[in-house]
Parts: sequence; structure tokens; C-alpha cells
Amino acid sequence: MTSTLLTNIGQLVSWDDEQPIREKAALVIEGDRVAWVGSSSVTPLADERIDVDGAAVVPGFVDSHTHLVFGGDRSEEFEARLAGQPYAAGGIRTTVAATRALPTPQLRVRATRLAAEALRSGTTTLEIKSGYGLTVEDELRSLEVASTLTPHRTFLGAHVVPEGSDASNYVDLVTGPMLEAVAGVASAIDAFCEEGAFDEDQCRRVLTAGAARGLAVHVHANQLRPGPGVQLAASLGALSADHCTHVTDEDVTALRDSGVVAVLVPAAEFSTRSAYAPARRLLDAGVSVAVATDCNPGTSFTTSMGFVIALACRELGMTPREALHAATAGGASALAQRDVGHLRVGARADLVVLDAPSYVHLAYRPGVDLVRSVIRRGEVVR
Amino acid sequence: MTSTLLTNIGQLVSWDDEQPIREKAALVIEGDRVAWVGSSSVTPLADERIDVDGAAVVPGFVDSHTHLVFGGDRSEEFEARLAGQPYAAGGIRTTVAATRALPTPQLRVRATRLAAEALRSGTTTLEIKSGYGLTVEDELRSLEVASTLTPHRTFLGAHVVPEGSDASNYVDLVTGPMLEAVAGVASAIDAFCEEGAFDEDQCRRVLTAGAARGLAVHVHANQLRPGPGVQLAASLGALSADHCTHVTDEDVTALRDSGVVAVLVPAAEFSTRSAYAPARRLLDAGVSVAVATDCNPGTSFTTSMGFVIALACRELGMTPREALHAATAGGASALAQRDVGHLRVGARADLVVLDAPSYVHLAYRPGVDLVRSVIRRGEVVR
Repeated sequence: MTSTLLTNIGQLVSWDDEQPIREKAALVIEGDRVAWVGSSSVTPLADERIDVDGAAVVPGFVDSHTHLVFGGDRSEEFEARLAGQPYAAGGIRTTVAATRALPTPQLRVRATRLAAEALRSGTTTLEIKSGYGLTVEDELRSLEVASTLTPHRTFLGAHVVPEGSDASNYVDLVTGPMLEAVAGVASAIDAFCEEGAFDEDQCRRVLTAGAARGLAVHVHANQLRPGPGVQLAASLGALSADHCTHVTDEDVTALRDSGVVAVLVPAAEFSTRSAYAPARRLLDAGVSVAVATDCNPGTSFTTSMGFVIALACRELGMTPREALHAATAGGASALAQRDVGHLRVGARADLVVLDAPSYVHLAYRPGVDLVRSVIRRGEVVR
Repeated sequence: MTSTLLTNIGQLVSWDDEQPIREKAALVIEGDRVAWVGSSSVTPLADERIDVDGAAVVPGFVDSHTHLVFGGDRSEEFEARLAGQPYAAGGIRTTVAATRALPTPQLRVRATRLAAEALRSGTTTLEIKSGYGLTVEDELRSLEVASTLTPHRTFLGAHVVPEGSDASNYVDLVTGPMLEAVAGVASAIDAFCEEGAFDEDQCRRVLTAGAARGLAVHVHANQLRPGPGVQLAASLGALSADHCTHVTDEDVTALRDSGVVAVLVPAAEFSTRSAYAPARRLLDAGVSVAVATDCNPGTSFTTSMGFVIALACRELGMTPREALHAATAGGASALAQRDVGHLRVGARADLVVLDAPSYVHLAYRPGVDLVRSVIRRGEVVR
């Protein structure tokens, strides 16, 4: 097993309990794991040595909420929104039509390209949802495409009721033949709990059916207005409640008490010109918070976790440290993957060498490509 | 002279009077100039042929307002601002101390690195201000560093009154020995007209002294509160009034009637958490508008015009087309350089090939590096 010493690290963010952030650090990778973390004044033996010249090193970003598999583009809807049209969940149907029309090889090429774009920008762990197929066949092939890109593939048949369908019949389809078809490919299930999408009872049916098949649970909750999504997530022991833009004090308490991770997606609020989620209320109450891109063609067509971190600081009132934690360890919690999102000994060797002396620059230098190098599973991939 | 045909351009933004934006286009570069623009169905003779596979091509960005030459970093001040501390012009003095302390070779290395970062992100024309030296020697060496990077170098001795100086004596220095020393290196003069910086009379003295030496005039105007800066710019026939965050109806009329370009810098407002400039009022009144990064370590540490375009759409209410125009042709107007910021025949062959089918993606895909290739003066530089 090859070992590599990364040394002369100006600032290392490991999220280690004792020294979560250390200056003048070094790190040893053995195979695909972090084998040692310490001071750069110590020189452990290693086969290779990389001097990062004072750069900051942070855990690879964990993007715990994306919709990367889709056809078409909604730049016209985006332009209309800039001209004043509000976002409505119905726009999803535009992408559903384009996705169904796209042959699988093209669907794969497009998703692979976006995943590569995400990796170049430092995202080493990615969740991908289906939800633009909405037929047994199209949901299955979306998840099969996702399965070539990540172990975290979430079945989101309950994204919106497809055109021409009755909601109740469609939920029967989702919880019946569709779930049956995808259960072997998906690792999690999700439902969009919102007016215009699915109500509380429908979401509960979908999510409990998925949980019964061993799938982890996520909920699209409280995005456009207050609603039952967060409480549903808490009552089902979901991994995450995503969006959480409109939450009551009871919702905040439920998140804290249940340990459900609030996955905030400020880039969606940026692109839809909506109000931002109340991150400070959540953090101050002790809720676990993640940030994610929500990459999708309708409301947030970005793969950049750096941009999300900058927005989390500017618009969500998070400190740079809280934002980086949410983009790494927070995302890992939302996906229940314990060996990513940090750089403690034993972690997967997923890390980003920044073109900056401090992680603060991720927020301080918005829009700038600050990724000097990306290492995933111990391999330099950029 | 070598000629190159760029063909299969999905969308070409040339700002040509007849067809400012055309689909399925081609373009011929001869030497460092645009020699022909037309349909991709026509195949003019050329020595080389580049097929851009349906990508959009836009003019290279013109960043008409930057402060790239400086020492140090103000990430701590940035973090304090996130914690609630408001921005004050006095922070400039921190950078002045760091700049004075930095030997010229390091000053050059740092500025060159930022200029290269800007070029990679599509900026092919750059303005650079001094203003972190504030002694004869330090202003001169800042402008000499800038002179290796751009013809657009602006003397901003009147950035702030240096610590320990009296304002009136300092203005004597700026208009006397300092101007004398830099007049051969600078192409323009600028003054920060604001409480805490310089008042109207002081700015007028500085700017008229510069104009008398043949320097073009820019004014830092109305950034933190309403003030006389915009009217001063109009009365002096300045090229631009920069910031324009707090303007009265009379200011708007003065800008329109005088033809002074309003250079808006939304990334500074993003980073300082300030109110955004009233771009719609300016545009709707018929004012010429540019957008720029204002790249500097205190209030806007970004070189990304793509990020500025995304903010101009989200926060300034500009359409993607208006934002792109402001980032190209608008910037060229602010610098009075007629052969950049567009791709009409005769223009300098400065252009960006986007990793997207339409320029709208610059706003639709915030935070994503959408630059596939950059051509400057006919040479592929990325």
C-alpha cells in the first residue's frame, strides 16, 4: 500500500475533537485512508512527499442534496423569474418531459459531466436523487445512471404528480411497482412535501414504504411555506429534512430533539430569489446543519460547494467555520456516512488543497476557483 | 498574418448593431483582430479552424475597476464583518501598511497572480488602481507594477488620508510631487469622494490636477451614503462614477446627461453586506452602466466577472443580457477603449468560449467555472 505525506499544510481542517483546525500541519495517506495527522515539524516515513507550500487543506465537500440526472435546461424559466415570475413546483414537469425524451446514453453523459464538474470544484461525496422520470422505467434508469456515479442514490418518485395522473393513484404506483423496481438500486427515499407536490399523508405512505424496504429517509420539507414536512421527518427518524426555509419554533425543537439534519440549500434561494432559510435559529438551537447545492436545472443549477459556502456566510449568517463544517461533516451526517466529511485518522482520504492560506478564503473570495488540487480515495484527481 | 476560423458557435454575442446576438455563427480572427463575423453555414478561408461544438462565444470581459496591487490580506476584517461589524473606509489603512512593507518583487508576483486568475476567468481587459501606497515612492511603484499588467492604470493617491497626515497637506502632496512622479506611468486619476476619505473640494483639486496632466478621470462616488461624487464626476466630464450605491434623482439625471458611465460593483456590496446599487433606476433612465469586480482585499476579494454577472442579475435586477453588456461593452465605455468589449469586425480578438450553449448560463449557473477557453489578442491563453 503506497503512503503519501502531505506536508507544509498552512492550515489543516480535520474536525478532530482535540484540534479541529491546526496550523503548520502534515497528513499521511495510506491507500485510500488518512493514516496520520500531526505537525509539519514531524516527518513520518512515506513513499511519496507532497509539499503544499502553506496552502490550507480541508475535507472534500459532501454535497448531500443534488438532482444531477435530467434532460433539458430551464434557462428560459430562469430568465422569466428574473423578470419577476415567482418559482412554483410545477416547473419540475418541464424537466420530466425532457428527461423522459432523452436516451439513456445521453442522460449518462450529461450526469457524468456534472459529477465531474462537482469533483473539480472539490466535491468528493455526492448524493443524487431521481425524480425527473416519474414512470417505473424512467425512475429506474435515472437511478441506474446515478449508480455509476455515487453510492448515495435517492429515489424521489414522489417529486411531483406527473401530468395526467391522479395523485392518489400515482402514490399507489410509487409505493408499489416503482418502489419494487428501484429498491435494489436506491439507497434512500425522499418525498417533496409541499402544496403543489404531495401532502403529509401521501409523503408518509411513500417514506414508510421505502423505509420498510431498508431505504434511508430524506424529506423535501418546508421549502415554499410552513408545512408538516419537518415534523414528518422527525417522526419517521429521517436522516435529513431538506430546505427548512419556513420553520416554526416547534419545527426547530423537533429537528434538535430528533437529530434530523437540516440540509440548507441557499443557492436555490439565490436562484429563485426566495427568502433564505433561518440558519442562525437552527444553529443556535443546536440543530445539526448541512449545506448542499440542490443542483438541478430549475432552481439551482450549480455544482459549486464553494459558492454555497460563500452564500451561507453572506445570506444565512453562518460563520466561515460553521459553513465549512456544514459543507463537509454536516453533509456526511445527512448521508450517515461516517468516514467522509472529516480528516481524522481512518477517514477516507478525500481532501481539497486550497489555493489559499485559510478556509476563510472560501467565503472571502466568492466566485473564484480556489481549488488547487483534489484528492479522492487517496488519488489526485485534480 | 495567421487567420483562424471559429465555427459552430451556438450563440455569438458581438454587440453588432444589426445582430447583437446571433445563433449558429462563425468568426474569423486575423492576427489580433476580428476580421469577419457571419453564419456558420458560410465557410470563409482561414489557416486554422476551431470547431467550438455549439458553445456560446462572448466578448472577453472588461473589468473596469480593480485594486489589484496590494500586500497582506484582510480575511480577519471580513470575518468580523460577518459577525456584524459594518464596513468603514478606514480599513484601507491596514492594506496601506502591508503594501508599504512588501518589497516590489513580491508586490509584482502577487498582482501578476491575480491578473492571471482574472484572465483565466475570462477578463481580457483590466483596469488597475494604485491607492495602497500613499507616498510618492509607494504610489509610483504600485503603478509601475500595474504597468506590466495593463495599459489602464489609475492613480488613486486620494484613496484615503494616510495615518498621521493632515488632509489638506496630503492633497498638496497628491496634486504636487506625487502626481508629478506618477503622471508618466498612470493613464487616469481617481479620488474616493466620501466621508472618511476626501470631500468634494479636495476631490476636485485632485481630479482637475490630474486632468491637466492629460489623465482620464474616474470618481469613487456615493458608495456609503449620498454625496457630491456623482455630480462632481458629471461636472468634470469623468469617464466613470464608480459605486453609485446612494444616488438621488438629480444624480441619475446628471449621469444620463453627461454620459458618465456608472460602474456598479455588486460583489463589494455582497462582501460588505451593504445595500445594492439601484441599477434598474439607472438603466431605465438611460444611464450607461458597467459592472466590475472592484477586486481588493478589503471589500471585494474576487476577480470573477462571471460572479459579478450572476449578482447583477440576482441583486441588481438586471437581465442577463444587460449584465453581460455591462461586463463587456459597458466596461469598455468606462475605460474609453473602443476596440474591446464587443466582437464587431475590427475589434481586438478578445473572447471567451463558454462551456454553455448561451450566455444566460453565466447567471443561471452561479459559482460554476463556465470558461472553456479564453482568446486574447488572437492567442488562445486558456
